[in-house]
Amino acid sequence: MKNKTPPFTIRIFDTTLRDGEQSPGVSLTIEDKIEIANQLSQLGVDTIEAGFPSSSEGEKKVIKQIATEKLQPEICALSRANKPDIEAAIDCNVDAIHVFIPTSPVQMKHAIGMTPQQVLDAAVDSVAYVKKHGLTCEFSPMDATRSELPFLKQVCQAAEEAGMDRLNVPDTVGIMTPKTMTKLIQEIKTAVSVPISVHCHDDFGMAVANSLAAVEAGAQQIHCTINGLGERAGNASLEEVVVALHMLYNYKTKVNTKLLYSTSRMVSALTGLAVQANKAIVGENAFAHESGIHTRGVAEKPLTFEPIKPELVGRTRKLVAGKLAGTRGIKAELEEIGIRPTEDQLKDIVKRVKELGDKGKMVTDADLIALTSAVMGEVLGEEKIIDLCDLAVMTGVKVLPTASVRLVLDGKEYVAAETGVGPVDAVLKSIQSLTNSIEKIRLKEYRLEAITGGSNAVAEVVIKVEDEKGNVVSARAAREDIVMASVEAMINGINKCLLKNRKQGNKK
Amino acid sequence: MKNKTPPFTIRIFDTTLRDGEQSPGVSLTIEDKIEIANQLSQLGVDTIEAGFPSSSEGEKKVIKQIATEKLQPEICALSRANKPDIEAAIDCNVDAIHVFIPTSPVQMKHAIGMTPQQVLDAAVDSVAYVKKHGLTCEFSPMDATRSELPFLKQVCQAAEEAGMDRLNVPDTVGIMTPKTMTKLIQEIKTAVSVPISVHCHDDFGMAVANSLAAVEAGAQQIHCTINGLGERAGNASLEEVVVALHMLYNYKTKVNTKLLYSTSRMVSALTGLAVQANKAIVGENAFAHESGIHTRGVAEKPLTFEPIKPELVGRTRKLVAGKLAGTRGIKAELEEIGIRPTEDQLKDIVKRVKELGDKGKMVTDADLIALTSAVMGEVLGEEKIIDLCDLAVMTGVKVLPTASVRLVLDGKEYVAAETGVGPVDAVLKSIQSLTNSIEKIRLKEYRLEAITGGSNAVAEVVIKVEDEKGNVVSARAAREDIVMASVEAMINGINKCLLKNRKQGNKK
Repeated sequence: MKNKTPPFTIRIFDTTLRDGEQSPGVSLTIEDKIEIANQLSQLGVDTIEAGFPSSSEGEKKVIKQIATEKLQPEICALSRANKPDIEAAIDCNVDAIHVFIPTSPVQMKHAIGMTPQQVLDAAVDSVAYVKKHGLTCEFSPMDATRSELPFLKQVCQAAEEAGMDRLNVPDTVGIMTPKTMTKLIQEIKTAVSVPISVHCHDDFGMAVANSLAAVEAGAQQIHCTINGLGERAGNASLEEVVVALHMLYNYKTKVNTKLLYSTSRMVSALTGLAVQANKAIVGENAFAHESGIHTRGVAEKPLTFEPIKPELVGRTRKLVAGKLAGTRGIKAELEEIGIRPTEDQLKDIVKRVKELGDKGKMVTDADLIALTSAVMGEVLGEEKIIDLCDLAVMTGVKVLPTASVRLVLDGKEYVAAETGVGPVDAVLKSIQSLTNSIEKIRLKEYRLEAITGGSNAVAEVVIKVEDEKGNVVSARAAREDIVMASVEAMINGINKCLLKNRKQGNKK
Repeated sequence: MKNKTPPFTIRIFDTTLRDGEQSPGVSLTIEDKIEIANQLSQLGVDTIEAGFPSSSEGEKKVIKQIATEKLQPEICALSRANKPDIEAAIDCNVDAIHVFIPTSPVQMKHAIGMTPQQVLDAAVDSVAYVKKHGLTCEFSPMDATRSELPFLKQVCQAAEEAGMDRLNVPDTVGIMTPKTMTKLIQEIKTAVSVPISVHCHDDFGMAVANSLAAVEAGAQQIHCTINGLGERAGNASLEEVVVALHMLYNYKTKVNTKLLYSTSRMVSALTGLAVQANKAIVGENAFAHESGIHTRGVAEKPLTFEPIKPELVGRTRKLVAGKLAGTRGIKAELEEIGIRPTEDQLKDIVKRVKELGDKGKMVTDADLIALTSAVMGEVLGEEKIIDLCDLAVMTGVKVLPTASVRLVLDGKEYVAAETGVGPVDAVLKSIQSLTNSIEKIRLKEYRLEAITGGSNAVAEVVIKVEDEKGNVVSARAAREDIVMASVEAMINGINKCLLKNRKQGNKK
């Protein structure tokens, strides 16, 4: 720490609601944006860039609304370097205005059709106009990283003289490397004395590393977005930037890292943009371990293969059975559900898990229990507890989606019929109405994997059912018929849940 | 180029089939792995790490199979530093064996329970054993980045004396930064003279930048995976590493970048791990532009907002209508489908697109045409060409999924019934059997967004239909009933396709 120059705390400027919303295909409603703004405030970002007021009337309305919410962070609006844009932003009652204008030859000529002198004048006039209205002004020479350095410095100095409070350096098309970014920030620091910020895009996968390189070179603020959303390949991901700053660079931020995961989930749900499983910090697999060497190590000491404690970012560790799984990982997984095979049985179970994996299958809880049962040759065996005898489902135009079901449980026959909002809902409701009344098992989660291809593509359904003690069991089915895949997964899950309960009951 | 030391060509060591397959939840079949190996060979990687032979019998079989395919790249197998593992690898007839053993205090103690001396001996014995069998040996001191430097150097030197051909430096838990990686590689270069490789994990989002920093410091090979798959947050993404090497660092590789996108799609389909929209190079949005400033710039000169030519990586540019779209982008989109509104009409269309976007909706082709029609007040208007009158769908246990449909087109009534593999398939087939015979319109693509929540969650279906001239139209519907959402999207798409055809026909 001694070698660093203050400040040790880096400002986090969140632009999820502005550059993040520019992600093609994303449109947020007023309610969505307000919900995200409130979450960002709780998360502890320093600035929320709420939007671009001059883009639409709806956009203006939502920024105004966010500004009235009295949130902790500074509320900022984006503006081009012209009076109408700035006035639209002022109208929104924000704390700060982020004024931008291109300074690179290609963008000055082809994106806005202005000469360098016109750009310089517009920058100065705009910053001065914002300051005349008493607002904080952050200024961005857009495409700074492709600008000619002398002109870039000239514009930055002129903006500083006009009163800008912070200078943001945008790597608009994401072409920097950590080395070139370090040099550029060092150069710019010789020209201006206001705090420097960076705004990096991820076109070559280096937005996070470039942002951190800028901080090492003296930048005091990073622009980022939840899940790395933004134009094209997106911006620097807030969760990666913050956790790296804290753990690898020994800087502080005001962000409460424990809310990173829940924030990521919320933004993903509201924008409709999924986070890939192998995304750092917030991806489904970021804290999951399957291979034997890793699960064995993590079971003994998490630090062996886990650089970040999952709890630090609001998550938990996950051990996954699969073809590369080892004995200890699977033992730990079975112990979690109260099953303790002998050493020989365990070896056999591991062998069968690997065989299933070799066939290209993900191994669900239900699969693991089925294999274990077969090996242990006990009640957990292959026989069904619930047997589905009859099922009929219909839907159509002016047809209420309806399902009827007849099933046998412990030799007794049960019949039910239900309507639903669709055929899947109707059929799962009718099965549930029976199992819930008999064994208090309810559907906790229904997940249908996305289907792309023809209408005859295989649909894979994964469900989770929960009994009254809070035990959760997952099960899967894959069929070309979405309705029947849902039914099969549900029956499968209920059977495994019942088997597990009875198994645990027998042991007591 | 003059300042660089040779070689200018960096080796690409692909570990999609090994570390990539260790992604929790991923299991590939023999056929999948062979298909991917062939694609990687065409792509032009230097080494294919085909798997870990001692993990399962199936794994051994598939590696053996890949080794017999006579592919261009070197075929490599992973092995722990012990004789049975190495023998299993030799059995597979591979060209090279990648031997690894941990050298960090935490992993030596807790992951394998060996002393440093035992580790050193095992490393030397294993490398010598591989070389005795005449195979290429790449050696990895696992968790090198958390190892004590003097011991790490000692092990590397001993392995070199024992005959290792390449030294791979694994950042097993992804804790490096470009700066620390640069220093480490410089240190290691003082200890060994064989080519140095790096293997980076992405736990803090810096796998790509760290790999490239290693190359800047003198490394000659990078381990990477398609789509950045791998343990936890995954490995350095091959597509990002390669394109950055070529475009930002001025190095060469043997990779044919034009195959990057198709390779990414194949791996995503076979592993079941989706690539997020905002993933660099291969994500859906990586070459898409929505906001007005960007679409305007790109329409005038792509370089303004596009650092990478989409064709370079086997892709095309996409302009997207949405709330942040500008006049020029939407004009360009409409022109593509032969619609030329006046300036005033165009303004009105843009306003309505923004209004739709403000409601949180993605704007599909059908939406854009519907808005445009309404504005232009022409045949494109709201009236339907096809009118769906009756529809009935059923499925169940021992019920063949069946659908019947009655629709009216240009005042004439048509009736059809079809069976299918499921209710959605049956109903789309029956609609298609009619429209195909009347107007030669066929379903080209069916996409159902993933559903998570209850069985009553809203299902969003996006379809693409194609007429005989190859015109493609997309349309969307969102309903709680999956079957009815599919029907609505299909009818919607067919109607827009017919409208467009007739509109174009009228103009001639």
